[in-house]
Amino acid sequence: MATHSLFLLPGDGIGTEIMVEIEKIIAWTNAEGLTDFSLDRGLAGGAAYDKHQVAITDEDVAKAKAADAVIFGAVGGPKWDNVPYEHRPEAALLRLRKELAVFANLRPAICYPALAEASSLKKELVEGLDILIVRELTGGVYFGEPKTITDLGNGQKRAVDTQVYETYEIDRIARVAFDLARTRKNKVHSADKKNVMKSGVLWDEVVKGVAKDYADVELHHILADNAAMQLVRTPKQFDVMVTDNLFGDILSDVAAMLTGSLGMLPSASLGAPDAATGKRKAFYEPVHGSAPDIAGKGIANPIAMIASLAMALRYSFGQIELATRIEDAISAVLSDGLRTGDIAQDNRKTVGTEEMGAAILAKL
Amino acid sequence: MATHSLFLLPGDGIGTEIMVEIEKIIAWTNAEGLTDFSLDRGLAGGAAYDKHQVAITDEDVAKAKAADAVIFGAVGGPKWDNVPYEHRPEAALLRLRKELAVFANLRPAICYPALAEASSLKKELVEGLDILIVRELTGGVYFGEPKTITDLGNGQKRAVDTQVYETYEIDRIARVAFDLARTRKNKVHSADKKNVMKSGVLWDEVVKGVAKDYADVELHHILADNAAMQLVRTPKQFDVMVTDNLFGDILSDVAAMLTGSLGMLPSASLGAPDAATGKRKAFYEPVHGSAPDIAGKGIANPIAMIASLAMALRYSFGQIELATRIEDAISAVLSDGLRTGDIAQDNRKTVGTEEMGAAILAKL
Ligand SMILES: CC(C)[C@H](C(=O)O)[C@@H](O)C(=O)O
Ligand SMILES: CC(C)[C@H](C(=O)O)[C@@H](O)C(=O)O
Repeated sequence: MATHSLFLLPGDGIGTEIMVEIEKIIAWTNAEGLTDFSLDRGLAGGAAYDKHQVAITDEDVAKAKAADAVIFGAVGGPKWDNVPYEHRPEAALLRLRKELAVFANLRPAICYPALAEASSLKKELVEGLDILIVRELTGGVYFGEPKTITDLGNGQKRAVDTQVYETYEIDRIARVAFDLARTRKNKVHSADKKNVMKSGVLWDEVVKGVAKDYADVELHHILADNAAMQLVRTPKQFDVMVTDNLFGDILSDVAAMLTGSLGMLPSASLGAPDAATGKRKAFYEPVHGSAPDIAGKGIANPIAMIASLAMALRYSFGQIELATRIEDAISAVLSDGLRTGDIAQDNRKTVGTEEMGAAILAKL
Repeated sequence: MATHSLFLLPGDGIGTEIMVEIEKIIAWTNAEGLTDFSLDRGLAGGAAYDKHQVAITDEDVAKAKAADAVIFGAVGGPKWDNVPYEHRPEAALLRLRKELAVFANLRPAICYPALAEASSLKKELVEGLDILIVRELTGGVYFGEPKTITDLGNGQKRAVDTQVYETYEIDRIARVAFDLARTRKNKVHSADKKNVMKSGVLWDEVVKGVAKDYADVELHHILADNAAMQLVRTPKQFDVMVTDNLFGDILSDVAAMLTGSLGMLPSASLGAPDAATGKRKAFYEPVHGSAPDIAGKGIANPIAMIASLAMALRYSFGQIELATRIEDAISAVLSDGLRTGDIAQDNRKTVGTEEMGAAILAKL
């Protein structure tokens, strides 16, 4: 049993509460000899700002880079609305993504059968839904320069953000999408705004080039605005969707919301394989945020966080069987009728964070 | 009865078919003495390219600028997928928006009662839905420079798009939103990505400043990704939403799709009031596109186009009564059970473009 290091960054709000449940599961898998994880813990977002006046310290970034995988909770909350821009909670996330160079963000949008009714969409449109959004995570308008606000005098300011993409950035994310499509339904939709944006023109050109190496995968181009519409109209037409950082932010949120399972959805952010070891830097986090409105009440849904650990087992440690076992345990407690408040239903039992975590652990 | 000039640009695909129905309605309102419109017609998009090798000629742009209002159909289609980028059909639309300086794009998302079942959302979530998206239309990443693709050698290219907003651009669109909110539910959501984009920071700062002049209107800030989610989750929480050009493109499409009435939704794009005459340049178009897949079959839904004429009567010519009469006629034919193919329902009569137009005219 190889020892692997996990660096836990619970962050703020419900992030800290749901991370507790992860720790319990890891304690159990370690005790059972199923894993040999060594754990370290750091601060991110408002928690780091309160202690160190930065969104994340250099030491914690270094630890994240050294770890075999980072498990991240969520950051932010009204308490930090007025901290200096460069130290706002989100800066921790952006810095980690960039420094770990985890360019490939995988966001599965899966509709758990037990929750098909919880969607705002008609049940038949989302039942069995299984979409994978592959979002570019280290480029585009998130990081392009210049990114400035200039005072022009006369009470006028000018704000500038810059969307930049180079061929290699598009090429590598497209390959991730096509590779994953091969393990699924061999179908990729590539979304951009090439009718308006030059980065969209290049995006489409490079994706079409990569597609030549994947003759067995169907490629469809779709404009990002139409993609948002079509996700709402007939989501099951999609299998893998690859898109840039900003469109991915929005489209993955739409896809997540469709499932009725927002509190249930994990994500993985992966870097390029290391030339020598083949290992990828990896960062796992729930799709949902820090939910300051329900923080501290012990009612947050830990499932997205636990499913993120399952993704880590699958993508970073090749432990497919254990990953599946955790995912099956999640499905099983849902079938048993346990629900946290966010997915509460008539005739189902509403439980808190701890009880949900314990129930999943019991199934394991 | 003052004479007003309308410049009709049917464009491509179903744009030309639905414009025919508009012409019939105008012929009738003119004949009845309800209006005194003088009409002129031009070419836009692929239709202009085929004849003049540009997306729109300078002459037609000049006519659009001189007219009291422009009525636009839709542009584009696979036939023109490979024309030079600067002459692609969409370039006509972008050039007209910019040269007419119609910065305020109003996109109502209304769920027609007769169509609540047609939505992919559960009926109770969309019944009675009435959202107005106010989209900034002449700035942001659509028009910012640089906007380039550079060949870097070694098979690498770099694409750049630039999002630029100045204070005055945000100020004026915010005022449009707040003014409209006063005629509705006194509630504005302003959507941006200020947690990532400097233009979002400026956007939020300026909108909050404008809000001080509208103490009677509630202002809510919302991140654009969350706005997309919330539109899908509980759309009726929104009344007016103001946002930038790119987010507005996506969010208005999501909002439109929710209603189940995509083929029914009009839009208005308005400029600043002229200092001397108080008149605003104005541009009216359906929210839907040119639908090449059904073009030429006589089955397109003319309602969004007809509703766009109603918007022109309301916003450009102060003919509220006639506008309402047209909107009521649309509701009446729907209540009678007439449907075009896009909104076909069991136990309702499916009709073509011409029959639908004639039925609405008969109600008038
Ligand atoms: C918190 C924020 C910076 C982040 C983003 O915009 O990427 C979030 O919305 C996400 O999708 O992970
Ligand atoms: C056709 C295209 C250029 C346009 C846009 O992106 O603005 C369209 O999607 C719209 O929303 O009017």
